[in-house]
Amino acid sequence: MQSEFQELKTRLIEINDIQSAAGLLYWDQSTYMPPGGAAARGRQSATLRRLAHEKFTDPTIGKLLDTLQSYQENLDYDSDEAGLLRVTRRHYERAIKIPSDFLAEVTTHTSESYQVWTEARPANDFDSVRPYLEKTLEYSRQSANFFPGYDHIADPLIEPRDYGMKAADVSQVFAELREALVPIASAITSQTPADDSCLHKNYPEDKQLAFGMKVAEKFGYDLNRGRQDMTHHPFMTKFSLGDVRITTRAKEDSLGEAMFCTMHETGHALYEQGINMEYEGTPLARGTSAGVHESQSRLWENIVGRSRGFWNCFYPRLQEFFPEQLGAVSVDTFHRAINKVERSLIRTEADEVTYNLHVMLRFDFELALLEGEMEIKDLPNAWRERFEADFGIVPPDDRDGVLQDVHWYFGLIGGSFQGYTLGNILGAQFFSKALETHSEITDDIEKGEFGTLHNWLKENVYQHGSKFTAPEIIERATGQAMTITPYIDYLRRKYGELYDLN
Amino acid sequence: MQSEFQELKTRLIEINDIQSAAGLLYWDQSTYMPPGGAAARGRQSATLRRLAHEKFTDPTIGKLLDTLQSYQENLDYDSDEAGLLRVTRRHYERAIKIPSDFLAEVTTHTSESYQVWTEARPANDFDSVRPYLEKTLEYSRQSANFFPGYDHIADPLIEPRDYGMKAADVSQVFAELREALVPIASAITSQTPADDSCLHKNYPEDKQLAFGMKVAEKFGYDLNRGRQDMTHHPFMTKFSLGDVRITTRAKEDSLGEAMFCTMHETGHALYEQGINMEYEGTPLARGTSAGVHESQSRLWENIVGRSRGFWNCFYPRLQEFFPEQLGAVSVDTFHRAINKVERSLIRTEADEVTYNLHVMLRFDFELALLEGEMEIKDLPNAWRERFEADFGIVPPDDRDGVLQDVHWYFGLIGGSFQGYTLGNILGAQFFSKALETHSEITDDIEKGEFGTLHNWLKENVYQHGSKFTAPEIIERATGQAMTITPYIDYLRRKYGELYDLN
Repeated sequence: MQSEFQELKTRLIEINDIQSAAGLLYWDQSTYMPPGGAAARGRQSATLRRLAHEKFTDPTIGKLLDTLQSYQENLDYDSDEAGLLRVTRRHYERAIKIPSDFLAEVTTHTSESYQVWTEARPANDFDSVRPYLEKTLEYSRQSANFFPGYDHIADPLIEPRDYGMKAADVSQVFAELREALVPIASAITSQTPADDSCLHKNYPEDKQLAFGMKVAEKFGYDLNRGRQDMTHHPFMTKFSLGDVRITTRAKEDSLGEAMFCTMHETGHALYEQGINMEYEGTPLARGTSAGVHESQSRLWENIVGRSRGFWNCFYPRLQEFFPEQLGAVSVDTFHRAINKVERSLIRTEADEVTYNLHVMLRFDFELALLEGEMEIKDLPNAWRERFEADFGIVPPDDRDGVLQDVHWYFGLIGGSFQGYTLGNILGAQFFSKALETHSEITDDIEKGEFGTLHNWLKENVYQHGSKFTAPEIIERATGQAMTITPYIDYLRRKYGELYDLN
Repeated sequence: MQSEFQELKTRLIEINDIQSAAGLLYWDQSTYMPPGGAAARGRQSATLRRLAHEKFTDPTIGKLLDTLQSYQENLDYDSDEAGLLRVTRRHYERAIKIPSDFLAEVTTHTSESYQVWTEARPANDFDSVRPYLEKTLEYSRQSANFFPGYDHIADPLIEPRDYGMKAADVSQVFAELREALVPIASAITSQTPADDSCLHKNYPEDKQLAFGMKVAEKFGYDLNRGRQDMTHHPFMTKFSLGDVRITTRAKEDSLGEAMFCTMHETGHALYEQGINMEYEGTPLARGTSAGVHESQSRLWENIVGRSRGFWNCFYPRLQEFFPEQLGAVSVDTFHRAINKVERSLIRTEADEVTYNLHVMLRFDFELALLEGEMEIKDLPNAWRERFEADFGIVPPDDRDGVLQDVHWYFGLIGGSFQGYTLGNILGAQFFSKALETHSEITDDIEKGEFGTLHNWLKENVYQHGSKFTAPEIIERATGQAMTITPYIDYLRRKYGELYDLN
């Protein structure tokens, strides 16, 4: 069996190499590519994605998996080999249902759609992306319909990103969360908002970036295996376990932008850098789900990076970077500023409390669009109406409304957003368990030391990559299934100290 | 026949997409990749190169070419379709003789070898690269031996880079050139060397790069379809006709480094950007040979960029960039400094006159190594001896001797260097013909206008890509075969004005 297992692994690594090259095509397109490269780049990405898919759906892979079935049954469930065979089988069963040509068509389409969106957003021009979105919705439905027998048409689109959850599960968790969140948000936003003017002075970009990278390194980001570049819509990407990169963007009049973006992407990168190096090149060498991935970005950005303890240690350093801007600003004022809760327009700039309402809007719209309850042409109005209902304000334009997120313009509609809120929930659940096991973490953070927390996460989450599913990782790491309690407790405690909550 | 032609073209574009992705893997490795990415990157490059080769040597390509044979015979020789079929047939016949696994092995090997060299050179440690070079020589011989029936074992290695030339042809041209060059070099180097101290003040890197890009744009480099990044060993690379990039390096204590490097790579980039856009994605969309490619880098760097006319226009602008460093330096002094002829150690820093002696040394060594007349272990000593004989100086170490060029450490031994000197010869030949047709070019350069020259080159050389072979391009553009006369005339005229030549 060893030779079949090796052959399977060799093939999987080859496929991974093609996917990594496709990943680099995307990274380059988002960072350094000159505009003239766009047309060919779309074609090149489509070619590589199709090739990888063709290679993965080659019947030989199916035969190898079948041959290895009995071998797999005798392996310890926790063994790496068993994990690799489980994950490969799951991906394979999914992949063979999607035709290569369809995938290539979608890749070409989303690449064009993305280019149109990059011009449409600044121009506040929904009409120019509308036909692309309509096509995207059609592709999304087609994509789901390769998997008949679903409970909800969104289920097959959620599955590859948050395995183990269906649309109904997400809706239920979101309903519970909404019930707990809305009163907190209302209690806070009825009070005088925090003064965040200290964040909106002039902050030279190079200093912002230098400070951000200092923090990233302190968190444990290994720059021998990573780097940061500038982009419009920041992301983390990995070309191998030895090359895990982050991207960021900066605004000179907003100190929070680059700093928290870097912390966020660093969280993603710590996850990928923490994966067992033995998994390099295989399907195990990636985070297990969108939700668990996002739990790490949100944990490091928010639970650590916006905590009072963290700034007790780092604020004096930040003041050294920006003596003129922050020399006379107290850590209290600064801490309140970076945790200002307000009913704002942009998801990526939203505070921890209202953020989830942005996600719920998008998630509900995805369901409605896929169900056919809503049409693309209705999106701008529907967005304004729902936004007013949830936030009490009306977006003045589509730029800061339905055009704000890249997701629908660069991928399918369905399954794209729930991971962010699942991540908020899971980040708090993991952190609370880590704290329960190592109560010294609170003090460590005050000292600017993150080793114990980082190691607990590596040990319990990161190292496993995709070997275990999200529900398995959560259960193993925290001793229970996903629960919103730690997250709600965390918000009540933190914002109870900052605001007057009943 | 149209459907077979289309199918062939579709397949060729797919192969090109894979090669372009491999090109990006290399560009990234040479510019931004963190060190931890090296191991996987080697594997990824090998995978893509092998895949492209497998796809190109698929018997279906051969069958399509056979089916299209009669169609091709009825096409006008000059038509794009005929050109594409000719070039594809030539590449195909070559490619099917090289096994995919061999190629992948070589790619993996050269990638490792390159990593070792990057550390060996600064450490002056030939011993650490020696076993890699020995393996490379073995691979080079094996590679040649896939093409039995050659006159010289280097012929099959020269062919893909300088089609139409054999080792004996190159040796003959080099012998003629040497005979003409050595007296010029001796006459100059026996005189007091030019004072180039004005180039070795402190020149901030960012200003050097800004000036270089200004010149590149003036030459006609389209930044909508290009960009410049920093690297150790500069090169030009292309991911599509819409994305042609250059790289450079800078030294703060040497004004010439980045400036002439940028001009040089810009010459290469102008060639690629000037190719008929209709050829995008096909084997026609690249320069026709190493020699013709190098003719463009050398033409723009030397014949234009080191000419007195050019600096009559640009020197005042350069002085504005560096008023403290150059404000008191005359254009005469500056022009003599950038054309200083000396017996120096480093090929890439050599002047126009002695440069070719560096190339001849390497070319002769490649032949001797391939013939088995010289062994890898003898290289360092042989280098010192030959260098002393040719230049009258002995390299103090291997760093600035046999370790200085990347070529043997990142590719095969054989065919790697002759293109540089062929380029010097051809650059002068093309330029002299352009001048014969448009005598206003001399005045244009004095005015900082390069449109007429650029257009002549586009019309006669660039646009054709690989549609015509190098000998065809030379004959069509200049009305005769390659000849050293314009180059020798150019050197005698230019250096006759700068030095006292008999």
